Amino acid sequence: MTDQSPVDRRNLDFLLHEVQDAGVLCRYPRFAEHSRETFDAVLDAAQDLADATFAGHNRASDEHEPRFVDGGVQIIPQVKAALDAFAQAGFTAMLADAEEGGMQLPYTVGLACDAMFVASNVSTSGYTMLARGVANLLQAHGTPEQCARYRAPILQGRFLGTMCLSEPQAGSSLGDIRTRAEPADDGSYRLSGAKMWISGGEHELSENIIHLVLARLPDAPPGVKGISLFIVPKLRVNDDGSLGARNDVQLAGVNHKLGQRGIVNTFLKFGERGECFAELVGQPHQGLAQMFHMMNEARIGVGLGAIMLGTAGYRYSLRYARERKQGRHPDQKDPASPPVAIIEHADVRRMLLQQKSYTEGALGLAMHAATLVDVQAQDADPARRREAHLLLELLTPVIKAWSADWCLKANDLAIQVLGGYGYTREYPVEQYWRDNRLNPIHEGANGIQGLDLLGRKVMMDGGAALKLLLRDVAATASAAGGVPALTEHAIALSHCAATVARTTGVLGAAMARGEVRLALSNASRYLGMVGHLAIAWSWLRQALVAARAAPATAADADFYAGKLAACRWFFVHELPTTELDAQLLGALDATVLDTPPESL
Amino acid sequence: MTDQSPVDRRNLDFLLHEVQDAGVLCRYPRFAEHSRETFDAVLDAAQDLADATFAGHNRASDEHEPRFVDGGVQIIPQVKAALDAFAQAGFTAMLADAEEGGMQLPYTVGLACDAMFVASNVSTSGYTMLARGVANLLQAHGTPEQCARYRAPILQGRFLGTMCLSEPQAGSSLGDIRTRAEPADDGSYRLSGAKMWISGGEHELSENIIHLVLARLPDAPPGVKGISLFIVPKLRVNDDGSLGARNDVQLAGVNHKLGQRGIVNTFLKFGERGECFAELVGQPHQGLAQMFHMMNEARIGVGLGAIMLGTAGYRYSLRYARERKQGRHPDQKDPASPPVAIIEHADVRRMLLQQKSYTEGALGLAMHAATLVDVQAQDADPARRREAHLLLELLTPVIKAWSADWCLKANDLAIQVLGGYGYTREYPVEQYWRDNRLNPIHEGANGIQGLDLLGRKVMMDGGAALKLLLRDVAATASAAGGVPALTEHAIALSHCAATVARTTGVLGAAMARGEVRLALSNASRYLGMVGHLAIAWSWLRQALVAARAAPATAADADFYAGKLAACRWFFVHELPTTELDAQLLGALDATVLDTPPESL
Repeated sequence: MTDQSPVDRRNLDFLLHEVQDAGVLCRYPRFAEHSRETFDAVLDAAQDLADATFAGHNRASDEHEPRFVDGGVQIIPQVKAALDAFAQAGFTAMLADAEEGGMQLPYTVGLACDAMFVASNVSTSGYTMLARGVANLLQAHGTPEQCARYRAPILQGRFLGTMCLSEPQAGSSLGDIRTRAEPADDGSYRLSGAKMWISGGEHELSENIIHLVLARLPDAPPGVKGISLFIVPKLRVNDDGSLGARNDVQLAGVNHKLGQRGIVNTFLKFGERGECFAELVGQPHQGLAQMFHMMNEARIGVGLGAIMLGTAGYRYSLRYARERKQGRHPDQKDPASPPVAIIEHADVRRMLLQQKSYTEGALGLAMHAATLVDVQAQDADPARRREAHLLLELLTPVIKAWSADWCLKANDLAIQVLGGYGYTREYPVEQYWRDNRLNPIHEGANGIQGLDLLGRKVMMDGGAALKLLLRDVAATASAAGGVPALTEHAIALSHCAATVARTTGVLGAAMARGEVRLALSNASRYLGMVGHLAIAWSWLRQALVAARAAPATAADADFYAGKLAACRWFFVHELPTTELDAQLLGALDATVLDTPPESL
Repeated sequence: MTDQSPVDRRNLDFLLHEVQDAGVLCRYPRFAEHSRETFDAVLDAAQDLADATFAGHNRASDEHEPRFVDGGVQIIPQVKAALDAFAQAGFTAMLADAEEGGMQLPYTVGLACDAMFVASNVSTSGYTMLARGVANLLQAHGTPEQCARYRAPILQGRFLGTMCLSEPQAGSSLGDIRTRAEPADDGSYRLSGAKMWISGGEHELSENIIHLVLARLPDAPPGVKGISLFIVPKLRVNDDGSLGARNDVQLAGVNHKLGQRGIVNTFLKFGERGECFAELVGQPHQGLAQMFHMMNEARIGVGLGAIMLGTAGYRYSLRYARERKQGRHPDQKDPASPPVAIIEHADVRRMLLQQKSYTEGALGLAMHAATLVDVQAQDADPARRREAHLLLELLTPVIKAWSADWCLKANDLAIQVLGGYGYTREYPVEQYWRDNRLNPIHEGANGIQGLDLLGRKVMMDGGAALKLLLRDVAATASAAGGVPALTEHAIALSHCAATVARTTGVLGAAMARGEVRLALSNASRYLGMVGHLAIAWSWLRQALVAARAAPATAADADFYAGKLAACRWFFVHELPTTELDAQLLGALDATVLDTPPESL
């Protein structure tokens, strides 16, 4: 492997074309102008850009984090250069309509492009992901005037944006936010309050920053049903699109993070020193629903970030393990024999296999979810759109939380492969690990994802979403059952699916009879179990393709053999824990609930 | 809990007195002058000193790491102040003979003292641990003259020391070291070579630095059998104890680490610019055995470091979870109801229970091992000394590797409890996590510990060490079997012990018939299984005491209830994975070995 890129393009192509068959998406009218060739050309461009402008300053933006100076934020110039290049190459608008100047790409291909940028520099990519999120939200819920004023400049790369949800006293608990919006005579609003953990909240990277802010109207009911969504520009935008006066959004502080240091994280105050102008988006009290409309993609984005940081670490440690020579086999007693490459040591190879199984398994699942986003949005058949929607609702918390947990573990293993070198800042793997530690926390901490999955997603519509997943899992198991190399895995997957179905039934029954706290008390473990099922399924899908492939080259043969090996690792070494999960969950284990807080 | 200390003194006292019954050690003549009261007085002094001089600069020494300036190393002044106070209070010499000015304490009590310093500041403590290691090694293998010249000033706190093992091309593979020692006419030696990862290799914290260096004599056989041990002082020491000329030990670089930044980590070159004077310790070619003589204590020290960093994180996140109010119970629908302390949320309590079960379980095992060190050294009965030795040999890699893996996990959970705040450098938990990441790497990477355990320790002397452990486990299970609250755990522990015995037999048979690579290919998983058995045993020992205790106060009742809860957590949620380990190991799973390196 001479390839120094943090992304395995061969694997991206495999998932996109051989597993997801992304070319089929071109049958949808929206993508009719596209083809496999145009997809590949976009991916080539993304890869070139990621290598040329994103990867190079990944360490520098960690070492020289944004600084709070004279009320503003100083950021190393490479970040702006990369963002400008990104926008100029059209990637901010890659999903947007052609008539808006967009590439009108499927989300599936967009995710593959994002994968390259995120692997190269998760912090700088963060600005682009936030900007696109704001643009998407405005398209979905804003007026044409709001889109013209705020969305269009984002797509052109002139404006960036933020999502302002959390407050110092209310991180995951959005029902408790206190930021207030008072109607003004001109139909706009005046905001007052404070927002915490705002990525990209202040900088000079763009002409303007468009904050999307959750706040309460004076007549708002308490809790999540009283939250409205507002546009708050850093600088007012005049009717002709020119920039006006500075709005009252004050930078109150910069958070100093463990990782992802390149993207400034801020504490913002609204309306403290003057008037903070805001525009309502859509109807009052619909803010949370509007925000959650975007949440699946945002959470898949977090999962993707975790996966690609895991991938970058895997790729680096793999290269290191091939080159570094040290030690001998345990039965190789002659001290004068030459040392072997450390990849020859079983324990090192084990750590590489683990990393591969987590990151490539999860990437396969994330790519599948991306295709569901496209189907949900584009399919002519309402039943297929509905199915895609339900599956996405179910898979999103899994992709977010499982990927964050296990791809962080992958980064831990990458450090271990490098040993003492991995513990130094002279090598990149420690930064990947630090950067990845955010992913189990943001966009809803993983504990919240477990509650979302077990408390809502698998129970909604009489368990319709889980039934669909189990149907798809069964189809894969059935296909793999006929392939001798995969028969055992097919049986194991079917068995695990039945275990998940049975366990979910027990938990659902407990909730139905009112034992809600008990049933949900092990929700994180439940998410882990469903996640393992979903990743095993992802692996069996990949292994099916690999087992049937006719490799054209020796490199291809190695590639497919690696897929089969990592699949085997996951089925043999990882999936069996689901049995233990099911035993505990099915028994409604009350160890946690029975522990009095004061005894800790 | 208003106690802000990173150490739970109540728990230390519990383990020391209620579980280990450390007062019994005073029956040994060496400790006859001591009593429970003197032990407690020493612990009080250690706690005061740790709080007063170590804890305060833990963050500062992370933020202002040692700098390589003009060929020397600059370190913030608080470090020297703490080290001076430590030596003046007699802690460098706490294990040394009274006639040398030492406290002549049992190692068990020494470990409890170390626990407080390490929890308060793992980096600054590192200097003290290294110095004591050098002093111990000189006592064991040096001449009286060498002890007078080098050990005495260390005990007085005037000199510090290092262990120079690794080289850039040979981290874990000591057989491949290349540093050479040539005999000089005066009976001393001249060293040439380079050493990597040397903690405390250069600084102005002490009058002198005594390096213990592994090197090869000209007639040395290849591999580990040709390694000798040398004393290399930074400054020559004259016969009258005064300091002479600077020796040729050059600081070639400073490593910039992810954590434990407060202790300088160096790349040293010997004899490159002139003559590097060295004294041989003991006999030629015995260097590795001499170094390994100290290895058990060094590795228990690494385990202790991991445990106490885990403990510090647990304590901080516990305090935070009691104080921080956010969200409501899942069945608490009224948004106007006040938010609850996050410790009320099951998933937060789960993360606290996990941290407690890992850190206190492991600390119990480490304290037990410390007592074995005392028995091994002091007992009049050779059979008891021999048993203690065998058990220590077996438990050392487990304490080192298991504690490093799982107490790092504890630190990860502490960050998660704090959420976004935990990800910032304004809170201490992220530093604990970074500091702890070294522990799976140094003093023999965890993969090496697995090979040591399975390839050597459980197999030596016909499996004598494992039989002893299983005997002790059976005794605890037998005692607990009669306590109703613990009967189930006792059965589970016995079952697990039988599983470990059976699995070890299968692996031993495979090695005996030459399938060494296969049998050892899952050695890390084997260590995890034995570790879980040992920690479950540690928990049942603690639970036995807790179940039988007659709490005098409400706080005591909570304390013992917490012990029973954490024990239950470990048995119900953690121990069952040993069944899966045993299935894979017993089947001689070849997934890793069958994976061709080129397919990764």
